[in-house]
Amino acid sequence: MFKNRRKIQIEWGDCDPAGIVFYPQYFKWFDACAAALFAAAGFPRPDLVETQSIVIPIVDTRCRFLIPSRFDDELTVETAIARFGRSSFDVHHRILKGADLAVECWETRIWTRIDPTGPERLKSQPIPDAVIRALSQGGQ
Amino acid sequence: MFKNRRKIQIEWGDCDPAGIVFYPQYFKWFDACAAALFAAAGFPRPDLVETQSIVIPIVDTRCRFLIPSRFDDELTVETAIARFGRSSFDVHHRILKGADLAVECWETRIWTRIDPTGPERLKSQPIPDAVIRALSQGGQ
Amino acid sequence: MFKNRRKIQIEWGDCDPAGIVFYPQYFKWFDACAAALFAAAGFPRPDLVETQSIVIPIVDTRCRFLIPSRFDDELTVETAIARFGRSSFDVHHRILKGADLAVECWETRIWTRIDPTGPERLKSQPIPDAVIRALSQGGQ
Amino acid sequence: MFKNRRKIQIEWGDCDPAGIVFYPQYFKWFDACAAALFAAAGFPRPDLVETQSIVIPIVDTRCRFLIPSRFDDELTVETAIARFGRSSFDVHHRILKGADLAVECWETRIWTRIDPTGPERLKSQPIPDAVIRALSQGGQ
Repeated sequence: MFKNRRKIQIEWGDCDPAGIVFYPQYFKWFDACAAALFAAAGFPRPDLVETQSIVIPIVDTRCRFLIPSRFDDELTVETAIARFGRSSFDVHHRILKGADLAVECWETRIWTRIDPTGPERLKSQPIPDAVIRALSQGGQ
Repeated sequence: MFKNRRKIQIEWGDCDPAGIVFYPQYFKWFDACAAALFAAAGFPRPDLVETQSIVIPIVDTRCRFLIPSRFDDELTVETAIARFGRSSFDVHHRILKGADLAVECWETRIWTRIDPTGPERLKSQPIPDAVIRALSQGGQ
Repeated sequence: MFKNRRKIQIEWGDCDPAGIVFYPQYFKWFDACAAALFAAAGFPRPDLVETQSIVIPIVDTRCRFLIPSRFDDELTVETAIARFGRSSFDVHHRILKGADLAVECWETRIWTRIDPTGPERLKSQPIPDAVIRALSQGGQ
Repeated sequence: MFKNRRKIQIEWGDCDPAGIVFYPQYFKWFDACAAALFAAAGFPRPDLVETQSIVIPIVDTRCRFLIPSRFDDELTVETAIARFGRSSFDVHHRILKGADLAVECWETRIWTRIDPTGPERLKSQPIPDAVIRALSQGGQ
């Protein structure tokens, strides 16, 4: 699978009074890393949203926190697709602290069109073949 | 002037490794308190946005931090309009910790219509008289 | 099991460009609701941290997002302990939008002492019987 | 004056339902940029906090928002010290969008020691000469 990597530097404001990353912050990074994965494969989020009204809301996530991180730590996030369904797909994130796995997360997201006139305003769509192809091939 | 009050309870995640509120968090509360002021005067933000495409972006803010707060502290925010111009207005927030002034903030915001076809997508508008009247009268 | 309820009002700044809650925000509420559960049972977080150096870091979480929420929505979070182990415990959060389940989350947390001299600075501890008793009894 | 530059890429989750950066987010970046300035001059925040118990809380800030930014915009923040007092100092941040000034911010911060036994737990200190020298010389 196509994989993308991102560096994260932990800032003071990412941490709580115990001096470690306040865990909701990890999900902000995961969301940005999911977008970065699509961008690296040729599908930047702004294009998806603005030209096709496509967003990728999350419906399920599981996350294991193995090693706490402190401010000024530098982490690496590795992100790849773990599974493609018809309109749903799974994203897998691994946060590495040096060589050690610090946090691991799985997400299920839906390929969704913003539909301003619909009752729910969001409507799932089949994932385009071009997206599946680009993100299924080895690379990076 | 019409004044609105809100209680804030400081959560663990609002605080930084020094154990005090991480200051960008105060601006989140101020934004919510500005919206709450309009709602209390009869102009809830969802109505403004959804039926009139009106938003109130900030163009200038000044904030003094007098007393730090810690988690589980309970604060009160007092919010009122300090000035109405044609399309701009000033909001004044005072955060009280017991009887003491802990944080004080002034903001200038603009009465703005979202204009999807315009070059900037946002266009300033005269503030409606009904809004000025409702927020200028004494109350609460 | 002892259950605690909290109201949440969705603010403008909790939402993303699709107009729905940006999902990391839910975890901020869950963290505050976990603390509120302990506080309601007689164990406020500030006492735990300041007098006993006890924190309750998360090690695992799973969350299902069933119904998106928009700003000005009012939600109710119901929080209870789902399991007590020796030093780990599971927290269960259900976010209700009216009568409908909107978001559901399970967390595993560890009863942990801050140990400034230790290599990891955090050390798991047996959960006190008084805590287990208070949070296992029906109530509220 | 010594100046430091940082790139910021706007993420989806930094933006609000109007599609522009939710302004409290700018203050998170300013705080990280103030720390980055000190780090670039040889005084990384972790060293200040952990070996000397020094933090630099903000006491006053003013910010002008000139041009809104949208997700996927790339901004540059230029940060420098504008004034050194005995224990207070002013930081000046300019956010550039291409060649245009998008946001401008001034902060007053205090060189402060964490004092766990004191009534306020925080105590202002004279700024060390070495810090003033390093941050006053031209560079970068």
